[in-house]
Amino acid sequence: MENEIIVYSISDSLGETSQKLLTAVSAQYPDLNFNKSYRFPLVNREEELLEILGDALKDKAIVISTLVNRQLAKTARNFSKQTGLLYLDLMHPFFEMIQERTGSEPIEEPGTVHKLDTEYFNRIAAIEFAVKYDDGKNPQGFVDSDLVLLGVSRTSKTPLSMYLANKGYKVSNLPLIPEVPLPQILENVDPQKLVGLVCQPDSLSRIRSNRLDSLGLSHSTSYTDLEKIYNELEYSQQVFKRFGVYTIDVTDKSIEETAYLIEEHFKNRIME
Amino acid sequence: MENEIIVYSISDSLGETSQKLLTAVSAQYPDLNFNKSYRFPLVNREEELLEILGDALKDKAIVISTLVNRQLAKTARNFSKQTGLLYLDLMHPFFEMIQERTGSEPIEEPGTVHKLDTEYFNRIAAIEFAVKYDDGKNPQGFVDSDLVLLGVSRTSKTPLSMYLANKGYKVSNLPLIPEVPLPQILENVDPQKLVGLVCQPDSLSRIRSNRLDSLGLSHSTSYTDLEKIYNELEYSQQVFKRFGVYTIDVTDKSIEETAYLIEEHFKNRIME
Repeated sequence: MENEIIVYSISDSLGETSQKLLTAVSAQYPDLNFNKSYRFPLVNREEELLEILGDALKDKAIVISTLVNRQLAKTARNFSKQTGLLYLDLMHPFFEMIQERTGSEPIEEPGTVHKLDTEYFNRIAAIEFAVKYDDGKNPQGFVDSDLVLLGVSRTSKTPLSMYLANKGYKVSNLPLIPEVPLPQILENVDPQKLVGLVCQPDSLSRIRSNRLDSLGLSHSTSYTDLEKIYNELEYSQQVFKRFGVYTIDVTDKSIEETAYLIEEHFKNRIME
Repeated sequence: MENEIIVYSISDSLGETSQKLLTAVSAQYPDLNFNKSYRFPLVNREEELLEILGDALKDKAIVISTLVNRQLAKTARNFSKQTGLLYLDLMHPFFEMIQERTGSEPIEEPGTVHKLDTEYFNRIAAIEFAVKYDDGKNPQGFVDSDLVLLGVSRTSKTPLSMYLANKGYKVSNLPLIPEVPLPQILENVDPQKLVGLVCQPDSLSRIRSNRLDSLGLSHSTSYTDLEKIYNELEYSQQVFKRFGVYTIDVTDKSIEETAYLIEEHFKNRIME
């Protein structure tokens, strides 16, 4: 059994879909080394493609392709048939199913997914919004937000805001600190837009300790003290109750998982 | 020809890979409506799966699957064979190729890609870093950065920082303004870490005008004035020259494209 595998990703655009698939697949093989895998973006000439396929054959690589160009995809398919190259086309089997169902043909324009259209600029604006209104820096942003995340320190408000912003949501967040009064403007925010983040106290203490380590600070602080954390969380629950805030326990959840729960919650609410 | 297509994405994790593929595929069909597509994450029981597949058949949907569980994937495959359901398995053909090449078997653990490991926490820390050191707010961060982005207003510094942070790079950025002296600390930053962003003046003027529109501000400002923009860009080029900064023209480029160029540049530099 070999403990190394090489994957070539070929795309006539940037190859992000292949990278995403490769990440998901490689997570299923903790003992296998994928480090020599290589990404070939912006491939648009047949000779260039054949050269890459030839190298893949020499490297005994698996080739995954998101080429949208029919001719290039056909070239790669034929090459693989003739040589026994392990080749996986992610796009054209999907295209064929769409044709079977609807009769529609793809436009075969590489990079269409990066079109600088309204949706793209809205997403960029959302990212800038989230940075501007992170950490309660400017509570004025709460009223214009699609979502306002509330929670005590280290409940993943910032990374969660950025992740949701990247999906186009205008997100702001506010740290809840018992000693600091809530900004008045919170009263004017539609409570339906509020999301409360909670975490198990021991997990939060551990995360805060790691945070102090990474900042090179000592632990003799109330920041990681369990009793202090209980009080903070108790206070945050009072705030959530007072405003009727939808809350999520982020303990042991990745940002992606928490973001998914938030999206589902708001989708269901809209459909009610 | 139908102008609507329904795609069901089924996953025993969150289904992000399917979403990415669906985005790329749907971009190839500007005239086709994918809005009724639906995502089924966290599917882990056979009866639940069969119910979804039954609904897909009724909806005449195309089903894409990233189920890692072999038994569930087999159930879906058999169902599709028997019923003629259009079904695309993204994981198992890849798994089979890896087995053919290495003999390795996947661990078949859903959600492994969201494991809260060191890499995950580094990525989260990088996002927090980028927010903290955005917009030259705290130039102290420059020396600890993997990358420092420099450019005049509206050259996409912030969204680019966030995108690269999400890939684990510690990124800060500094707006270049002729009237504002450069922070002293820039002299102490390894010039190899600096990236200069430039843009065509007319394009920049257009982007700034749109920005003012979105902020509800009037255009009678030097912010969008072409001569002013020429001067700003000229000044930024002087800075880039002085520090020997690698520069990228971001005109008509998406964040993803620019980020790709930056990553390639630094990869090649490391390999030199």
